[in-house]
Amino acid sequence: MGYPVRLATPGHGFYACRPSPVKRRTHREARMPPADPVQCPPANGTLADPGKERRPNAMIYVLDLFGVLVFAVAGSLAAGRKQMDLFGVVVVALVTALGGGTLRDVTLGLSPVFWVSDPMYVLVAAAAAIGTFVLARSFRLPRRLMLVADAFGLAIFTVIGVRKALGVGVHPGIAVVMGVMTGVAGGMIRDVLSGEIPLILRREIYATASLCGAGVFVGLAHWFPHTPLNAVVAVAVILAARLAAIHWRLSLPVFARRAEEPEDAQDT
Amino acid sequence: MGYPVRLATPGHGFYACRPSPVKRRTHREARMPPADPVQCPPANGTLADPGKERRPNAMIYVLDLFGVLVFAVAGSLAAGRKQMDLFGVVVVALVTALGGGTLRDVTLGLSPVFWVSDPMYVLVAAAAAIGTFVLARSFRLPRRLMLVADAFGLAIFTVIGVRKALGVGVHPGIAVVMGVMTGVAGGMIRDVLSGEIPLILRREIYATASLCGAGVFVGLAHWFPHTPLNAVVAVAVILAARLAAIHWRLSLPVFARRAEEPEDAQDT
Amino acid sequence: MGYPVRLATPGHGFYACRPSPVKRRTHREARMPPADPVQCPPANGTLADPGKERRPNAMIYVLDLFGVLVFAVAGSLAAGRKQMDLFGVVVVALVTALGGGTLRDVTLGLSPVFWVSDPMYVLVAAAAAIGTFVLARSFRLPRRLMLVADAFGLAIFTVIGVRKALGVGVHPGIAVVMGVMTGVAGGMIRDVLSGEIPLILRREIYATASLCGAGVFVGLAHWFPHTPLNAVVAVAVILAARLAAIHWRLSLPVFARRAEEPEDAQDT
Repeated sequence: MGYPVRLATPGHGFYACRPSPVKRRTHREARMPPADPVQCPPANGTLADPGKERRPNAMIYVLDLFGVLVFAVAGSLAAGRKQMDLFGVVVVALVTALGGGTLRDVTLGLSPVFWVSDPMYVLVAAAAAIGTFVLARSFRLPRRLMLVADAFGLAIFTVIGVRKALGVGVHPGIAVVMGVMTGVAGGMIRDVLSGEIPLILRREIYATASLCGAGVFVGLAHWFPHTPLNAVVAVAVILAARLAAIHWRLSLPVFARRAEEPEDAQDT
Repeated sequence: MGYPVRLATPGHGFYACRPSPVKRRTHREARMPPADPVQCPPANGTLADPGKERRPNAMIYVLDLFGVLVFAVAGSLAAGRKQMDLFGVVVVALVTALGGGTLRDVTLGLSPVFWVSDPMYVLVAAAAAIGTFVLARSFRLPRRLMLVADAFGLAIFTVIGVRKALGVGVHPGIAVVMGVMTGVAGGMIRDVLSGEIPLILRREIYATASLCGAGVFVGLAHWFPHTPLNAVVAVAVILAARLAAIHWRLSLPVFARRAEEPEDAQDT
Repeated sequence: MGYPVRLATPGHGFYACRPSPVKRRTHREARMPPADPVQCPPANGTLADPGKERRPNAMIYVLDLFGVLVFAVAGSLAAGRKQMDLFGVVVVALVTALGGGTLRDVTLGLSPVFWVSDPMYVLVAAAAAIGTFVLARSFRLPRRLMLVADAFGLAIFTVIGVRKALGVGVHPGIAVVMGVMTGVAGGMIRDVLSGEIPLILRREIYATASLCGAGVFVGLAHWFPHTPLNAVVAVAVILAARLAAIHWRLSLPVFARRAEEPEDAQDT
């Protein structure tokens, strides 16, 4: 049965064991037999009172959209540094905000991916990109504020990714990979589209913070299942690690080795 | 029930509600219960006479393959500019021609993706790439002809993408995103593989033309469902916008902002 | 019915027609009706004695993990050349080792992808990356050994990709594409993340060796189904072609053409 962690995020949420929303149903019913509640007793069986879970999930949905907003703004600023036009800024913002979750859903086999069934994600990301495009002509966002907001987005995305992966019953180690992927993949694709080597591969504790928080969350979910506090603790761990890294300029060791293959240098 | 737009493109087509072709059946039957026509009354219910739809779809299939051909040639020329070898040219041509539709099918959850079940797409793209590779040694394609053909391919891919997305019942706004993605993603991956920042992110009205046409098509499909003319109008809109942009060198405004973060300049 | 080639690789394997392993079952049962052996008579019908196939598959699983190990080491060294930190090295190693198979599973519609249901793949790749990171500070891997090991990994991945594609009943030509994609896509994403134009697109017979072996395997699988020797022959063909190319520095012709479009030069 895997790890009995509930998962009911509205947007990123796992949808197969609940009565599908109308839009989704149209899609699914053409491809699969109608979802039968009898098929999934375990997921429902762990819920003593499904109504109790509503409130935290609504909060997670709002936090998720906040993460999308922050990442879209960060993507827009990165695109602006490359002199992209309005459309390019929107595309890079969408990729930054939705790329990680898309990759997670595709590799987990949850299809369609989350933003296809809930247009709010695309809407928020596109609005954030256009707003940034317009406002950046006259305002200048405080760099420190952006870094903190981005760290918050990283923390939210990581925890949502782990939750969703645990919710479909994968191995805890794979759930950690999914959490980190949800948090960092969007930024990596953004950098590739901007013609740069992804910064997070080169220095700074960014993904490492995500990794720590994902590990903490998996551990807590194993020992204290169904505790809303787990997510709060994991988010706090990621925020603390990331902000400490920003403040004291911590970084991981860089790959070092003996001189080798001088003929490869010309490829750079 | 979503938006009742029919969709029966043979290749890019949505396959679950029709008796599958032989090859597909082999694949599906191993993973799902045999497709039951009773599962999908809505899609069939909107078809007064399924036979009537045959001819426009055959035309769309041919146009689709024409789009693949044109994009493969464009991809080959881009690869040639980078001094790639024969294999590299074929790979870049395949990615350019099939990348957008692949991304669309994967995010929509339509699997396997369209070119897996119909080898004609890979065949046309590979033949176009090899033909370009051989002929480019002695001929030179008129640049203007290529631009017009590419605009035509963009228009076809966009409309096919929107049709397919509407056919599985997604929100109209998401269908627009899918149409634009089908039209432009292949070219973006091509540019990334070629080591460039995707040109369409930086200047020229390219994706914007696709966006306008996709919006027009969604609107028409909502108000006048099942009218073959919708696709023609949408293609015309995209072609007109793109050719006007080429002719008068129109472009979107570029991201501008006040000087910021000089320390980031070193990343470039 | 497609081409009656069996496929039972444990890790990369096609799982729908066998009693799923425990972890996978948890995932699938929430999304699909329980797998019914009656659903897939053709695949079972071609197996005279399923038990006979066990041993070669265990071997293929080990070889597969060896391929993952080799590709992860190659990815780590490439990341090291770019001065990435420990996390970056692990990410690039994972992408190099698992990217090709992921793309294959996603386009074939086999979800979740292979490494989600078997954590061993991520474990081996991550351990190889960390080991390389640590050891590269004091040791220097012989370049020739790495090239031979990499050729072996390419051969294994290609054959496994073709087998898996044939196992789900796709057209033989598409199976060849899947084999080549499994073998080379990981390395291509690695190069893109490292900020380089993928080397295999530019010179050297690398993907071409994979293509030859994939074609040979599809032909053998068609004429002599269920012969374990097929895979051995295909691996030998790829190894021979690749090692000959390394030894005699063979390469494909490069795209050449008449001078054209000087205004594009500025994009480079």
